[in-house]
Parts: sequence; structure tokens; C-alpha cells
Amino acid sequence: MKTAPPPVIILVRPQLGENIGKAARAMLNFGLTELRLVSPRDGWPNPDAGPAAAGADRVLADATVFATLAEAVADCTHIYATTVRKRGVTKPVLTPEAAAQAVHASAGRSAYIFGAERSGLDSDDVALAHQIVTVPINREFGSLNLAQAVILLAYEWSKGQDLASPPDVPLDPPAAHAELEELIQHLVRDLDTAGYFFPAARTTATLRTLRTALTKAGWTSNEMRMMHGIVTALGRKAKKR
Amino acid sequence: MKTAPPPVIILVRPQLGENIGKAARAMLNFGLTELRLVSPRDGWPNPDAGPAAAGADRVLADATVFATLAEAVADCTHIYATTVRKRGVTKPVLTPEAAAQAVHASAGRSAYIFGAERSGLDSDDVALAHQIVTVPINREFGSLNLAQAVILLAYEWSKGQDLASPPDVPLDPPAAHAELEELIQHLVRDLDTAGYFFPAARTTATLRTLRTALTKAGWTSNEMRMMHGIVTALGRKAKKR
Repeated sequence: MKTAPPPVIILVRPQLGENIGKAARAMLNFGLTELRLVSPRDGWPNPDAGPAAAGADRVLADATVFATLAEAVADCTHIYATTVRKRGVTKPVLTPEAAAQAVHASAGRSAYIFGAERSGLDSDDVALAHQIVTVPINREFGSLNLAQAVILLAYEWSKGQDLASPPDVPLDPPAAHAELEELIQHLVRDLDTAGYFFPAARTTATLRTLRTALTKAGWTSNEMRMMHGIVTALGRKAKKR
Repeated sequence: MKTAPPPVIILVRPQLGENIGKAARAMLNFGLTELRLVSPRDGWPNPDAGPAAAGADRVLADATVFATLAEAVADCTHIYATTVRKRGVTKPVLTPEAAAQAVHASAGRSAYIFGAERSGLDSDDVALAHQIVTVPINREFGSLNLAQAVILLAYEWSKGQDLASPPDVPLDPPAAHAELEELIQHLVRDLDTAGYFFPAARTTATLRTLRTALTKAGWTSNEMRMMHGIVTALGRKAKKR
């Protein structure tokens, strides 16, 4: 499978160094490392960025600064403007999921661009983009901050990546059917001895209900052995009464 | 389609009120409103929660407090423990995506449980859960905070919801093929007049390349009209030379 390069994250006129750091942290969690800053308000480097990056220092150290968005995207072939607001710009609007798929399918380098904390991207920024990415959000409460928008896009992109493979946890497999059958027979034998199946006319239905419940449990061989022990122990207790 | 109730978000022994507020904000962005707190360190209500909630006050006002996790999940049928670390607990591990699908498919009420900021969920908490949810993350840099974990799970859940439908942006449709054909003919006529097609033997290939490029653009009727104007204007300019 052809692998497109990871998207570049571009923050346009970011205000607080802390938010640049948080964005870097959000990126690195999901394997994105290339950060570009367009005209950051307080210059660059910014002493507030490091502490907020929580260890994503490499992303900050490698960040590059540009005077204009056009320069920042000069080497990019697909540019996605992230915005939650409609701006009268008629471009296709993608979900983060659809954008991630487009990035993976792309033959070139993609960029996700994010606007300033309060004002977002302006119309000229958006005009440079090929498409718009909007996180679908509660219509009555839309309050995503910059780092949250970055993390959601990075997270969706990471789904196509090796690093995002599900963790390996060794699970005991469910026991084979014969072991379940043995347990059911054991239980039914003891229940029968205890006079559980009464009236006899309902025995078939009761057995079916019992089998359904035990089948659903999906017990492992170890759990089956424990259940045999429990059935046996309950039988002993009944005898003592 | 049957709709399962939205999952309950349960924070187990959360430490900072600020993080409870951020979790509430993350929830409401994606339409989750039911927050439960198990033994919050600094009691409840907590004055630091409100400012961090950025307007998600309703979620905080409706939050309920429990002494134990068992009480907090008493009415839940499916319990998902969120953890990034493996804990030797052998339970199925789901991605946020798979967990969201399971929540939507469920006949009962689901709960996502989150541990304290630093320590996470302990083994007894996880033992109450049916399944584990782990956000697949950069193996070399895993640094998700509580609110980020909440927002990712809430975001995945929201994909099944109406509120998460893609925004409507009125897009002009691409022009019908006949309009493209007219533009190509116009352009070819003027190019021919200008002696562009030389040598004649390559004309067919050149026309094919031109047609491919113009077809790809997907222009609207308005854009087609603009292009006619541009072609005409360029022709006028050439005549003046």
C-alpha cells in the first residue's frame, strides 16, 4: 500500500504559547511531528510552549515559522482548512474522518491549517485551502479549543497508521464446545438429583433457557473448571443441610 | 433504528476540579450530558470546575456523586474501563471506535469509566468493567490527559448521532458536460487562431491533455463563464500587441 506522508499541522497566527505547546502534545500522541507556525503573535520560540507540551519537545524544536500562510503551504499539495463556523466560502466540507481518508489516499503532502484561538481562520486563509474540515459538534454547545481540534484531526489520521494498531492483550480463548457440554451435563445431573426440574412438563424449556445462559457466558477452560467446582461444592453443602 | 441511551461518563476519584470542568466541556461538545463522580478528592461541588467547563454548566449542575464505583454503575448494563496501560487484566480491549459501536448496539445503558489524573483506574475498578477501551497512541509518546480521553470517546460516540451530521454548506454544482464542451471548443478555436497547435502531428495528444486538465477542475457554470471571459480577454490582448 502506498503511504502518503503525514499531514503538516499549521497554526495560523496562534496567540498563546501554551496553546502551541498543547497542540504539539496532541500531535505527537498520534504520531504527527511537523508543526509550522504562521506569524505567531508572541514570536518564536515562546517560553510558555515547552511546559504545555508535556514532553513533546521535539515537535516544538523542529517547528518552523513563516510570515504568511502561502509560504507555509508552499510545498503542500492538499490543504485542509479547519473551521467550525460557516464562512460563506463555498468549498466542500469534510468530517475529520473523511479528511483523514483523503490525506491517506493523496499522492502529495497534506496540510491541516488551524486559525487563531478566538478568531479562527479568516476568509483569505480559507481561500488557500482545497477543502474545509469541520468537526461535527453539538449545535447548542460548540466549544472546541485549538488543541482539541488538533487532537481530533490527529487521532482520525492516526487510524491509518501502524502505531495506532490495537494493543495486544493475551486473552484466554473461550473453551471448546465439548467443555461447555460437560458442564451443562454436570449441572443438569445435580439439579435433577436436587429435584429442580419440576413440573416435568417444563423441563425442556428450562433446559433451553439454562443452555442459552451458559452459552452466552463464553467461559474459558479455567472458568469451566471453576464452575464444575462450584456446582460440586453447592451439592455438598446441600447434603449437609 | 433502535437508539441506545447515551453513555454515562464516570470519573473515578478525580483530583482537580478544573479537570472535571474540562471533562464536562468535552462531553457537551459531543452531546453527552450525564456525568457521575466517584469520591472526588476535593468534594463536590468544586469551585474550579465551572470556569473550566466554558459554559457546560448544565452538565456540572446535573452531576451526581457516589461513594463507590459499584454504586455509580448500579443502573448500567455495559461498563467500559478506559485505560492506556495494560494491567494484566484479561478483558477484551476495544478501540474508541469499536466501543462506540458496541454502545450504540447495546440494549441497555452504557458507562465509560475514567480513572484519576495520575494513577488511572485501579484493578478493582477495572474488574467491574465488561471491556477495556484503549485509545491507540504513539508507543513512544503516550500523554493523553483526562479531558482528552473523554473528548475522544465522546467524539467517537457522537458519530452515531443526529447532532453529528455533517454541516450543510450550499455548494454550486459543477456545470453540465455541455458547458465544459463549449469552453473547450472556445479555447481550442482561439488557440488554433494563435497558432498554438504545432506541430500538427501532436495536436490530438495535446487536445487530450487539455481536455483532461479542464475536466479535472470541476468548474461551476459561473466559473465556466469566467473562463470564457478570460479566454476572450487573452485573445484581445494578443491582438493589441
